[in-house]
Amino acid sequence: MPVKELIEVSTPTLLINESLCRKNISTMVERAHRFGKSFRPHFKTHQSKSVGDWFKDLGVYKIAVSNLGMAEYFAFAGWDDIMVAIPVNVLQHRLIDRLSAKIHLSLVVDNEQALHLLAQHTDRSLDLFIELDIGQNRSGIPWDEAKKTADLVQSIEEYDKFHFAGFMVHGGHTYDARDENEIRRIHEQNLERIRIATADYLLKYPDLNISYGDTPSCSVAYNFDGVNELRPGNFVFYDLMQVQIGACMREHIAVATVAPIIGVYPDQNKAILYAGAAHLSKDSLEVDGKRVFGEVVFIDEDGWKIPESPVKITKLSQEHARVEVPSDQMHNFEIGKLVGILPVHSCLTANMMNWYRGLDGSQLDHMLGSI
Amino acid sequence: MPVKELIEVSTPTLLINESLCRKNISTMVERAHRFGKSFRPHFKTHQSKSVGDWFKDLGVYKIAVSNLGMAEYFAFAGWDDIMVAIPVNVLQHRLIDRLSAKIHLSLVVDNEQALHLLAQHTDRSLDLFIELDIGQNRSGIPWDEAKKTADLVQSIEEYDKFHFAGFMVHGGHTYDARDENEIRRIHEQNLERIRIATADYLLKYPDLNISYGDTPSCSVAYNFDGVNELRPGNFVFYDLMQVQIGACMREHIAVATVAPIIGVYPDQNKAILYAGAAHLSKDSLEVDGKRVFGEVVFIDEDGWKIPESPVKITKLSQEHARVEVPSDQMHNFEIGKLVGILPVHSCLTANMMNWYRGLDGSQLDHMLGSI
Repeated sequence: MPVKELIEVSTPTLLINESLCRKNISTMVERAHRFGKSFRPHFKTHQSKSVGDWFKDLGVYKIAVSNLGMAEYFAFAGWDDIMVAIPVNVLQHRLIDRLSAKIHLSLVVDNEQALHLLAQHTDRSLDLFIELDIGQNRSGIPWDEAKKTADLVQSIEEYDKFHFAGFMVHGGHTYDARDENEIRRIHEQNLERIRIATADYLLKYPDLNISYGDTPSCSVAYNFDGVNELRPGNFVFYDLMQVQIGACMREHIAVATVAPIIGVYPDQNKAILYAGAAHLSKDSLEVDGKRVFGEVVFIDEDGWKIPESPVKITKLSQEHARVEVPSDQMHNFEIGKLVGILPVHSCLTANMMNWYRGLDGSQLDHMLGSI
Repeated sequence: MPVKELIEVSTPTLLINESLCRKNISTMVERAHRFGKSFRPHFKTHQSKSVGDWFKDLGVYKIAVSNLGMAEYFAFAGWDDIMVAIPVNVLQHRLIDRLSAKIHLSLVVDNEQALHLLAQHTDRSLDLFIELDIGQNRSGIPWDEAKKTADLVQSIEEYDKFHFAGFMVHGGHTYDARDENEIRRIHEQNLERIRIATADYLLKYPDLNISYGDTPSCSVAYNFDGVNELRPGNFVFYDLMQVQIGACMREHIAVATVAPIIGVYPDQNKAILYAGAAHLSKDSLEVDGKRVFGEVVFIDEDGWKIPESPVKITKLSQEHARVEVPSDQMHNFEIGKLVGILPVHSCLTANMMNWYRGLDGSQLDHMLGSI
């Protein structure tokens, strides 16, 4: 990293390692290709037009987002095939009208009431996906409630303006895994549930799209029979949560928060960083019965260096991070120096920060999270 | 609440009830007055010039903030006595120079190295507070390390440009309390530790300022002997964490996130809201062994109504909140309607949202959190 640029960092700053990030993207593009699946990366993780361009460079042309405002942001950046992969928020029907006039917009429904409200409030032709819940217990029709699904498919068909495009599923319970094999086991169960839930529709709708997401499965599974499209998001950066799940290694993590050291307490094996929940998010892991909010890495000319044993952030206030420093690492902590922090959950960290800095000092955009 | 305004809300929006908020402010102003303490509210919770004006209306003229950028934000709004209540980040020395030329800026140090670096990098006259750690185990010199404190006082004195202004203490371990009496017990221990740590300095420095913070203590204690200044922050809004600690009641909470209902699953006693960690923060409480990320309230013409039994958010993704809905409340959940969410941690929720909406539909500012 050009030292000149780095010494100009004086407040918590989210660094992005473009080469690691591009590697994560190309690896996933290759996986989708290898398994013969179409690829619709979820852009909620990076929320960045600049990072989006790195996907475009590899021929990616369709994406998923997690809200309509984000769809608008990426439509403005030239993306014209966007799925809003969350049950539709009918209160934003005016934005739905505007966007669907401009791009190929796909929406998600999981119940009759939302469908009828949507029909009431828009005259646009729309592709609709039905969300299936295959075990995460978030949104979606439970995979084994065949009648509900059949009724909703029929209700969609009754509107000329709507087209039943397929099923959207997110196997988010792979996040409970703790190694690759466990991810694969949950993933196989997911595929089985998808096959059962969708079998009746494959004959009737030969072009049916079954869109399947989650970074853990898409990172390590070798079989995606029964789905057409992969829709992971987090892999673009990865994070410590994915390391814990078994989906990646620390070396794959492509973002780190640079933070000034503002307190050093050698006799307490402790350091305090200026970086808190306001910069990292409050997401945490449980490791050996303790909460961990991030791991310290050391900034060098190539970006950052990962210590052999994890140096953990064990407490996080709004703007303070407490680091448990092993004695043999204490010499790396000096007031006024900078360290890096690998995020627990990169989607939320990026969402907190609103912009990135590349290793060459350049600024990269991030959509303003909450607006 | 004027219905006209409310129906224009179509995405997660942080509502502020000005009258509850002003009541929280005036109650704390009166407490400080009653106990004969000066009052320096911590503005990291609201980060809003507009809310700051409500303090000005009651004669408050000095504040604390949690970083130098926030000091700049409030200096721009006319505040001219600001303490940055976190160990100084010497990397921002240019901003320290600019701000201290304009306002009365107080900084915090807890070690020699930071002090000498600060001295190297600024020629400004500055008021310096020493932070004492009275049990929270975050930053600060441990209260019982008298020699370290004495050495640092002496080192400050050796710089003509620096003035030893007093001690800054944050009794943040009151957050471990679960009722008022426990808060008071921890608080009494805090006062005792402060008395021991500061006794030697009271004679030598008759104008010594001992600034003490934390909302739980300042909300419920009846004795503040040994401190001069109260510095709570969260009380301006309160939140569910303060309710759990025993520092306030739900009826005191002055902010709620309005969120669209996007999923209703009566046979699962579940609803899904469009509102997630990107809007609420990922902070959580443990209630009866389960994580809680917020409680649902019902929007009405006066703001919001709190149900008799809590309706809890038990899972939070980036943009989805899962609500466990009791059967007798299910009729209140309809697709396309709005509900409110009382925050677990209002500082972080406000920090996520970047702006507020008043009950009259007006917009109120919030500093952009991470810039």
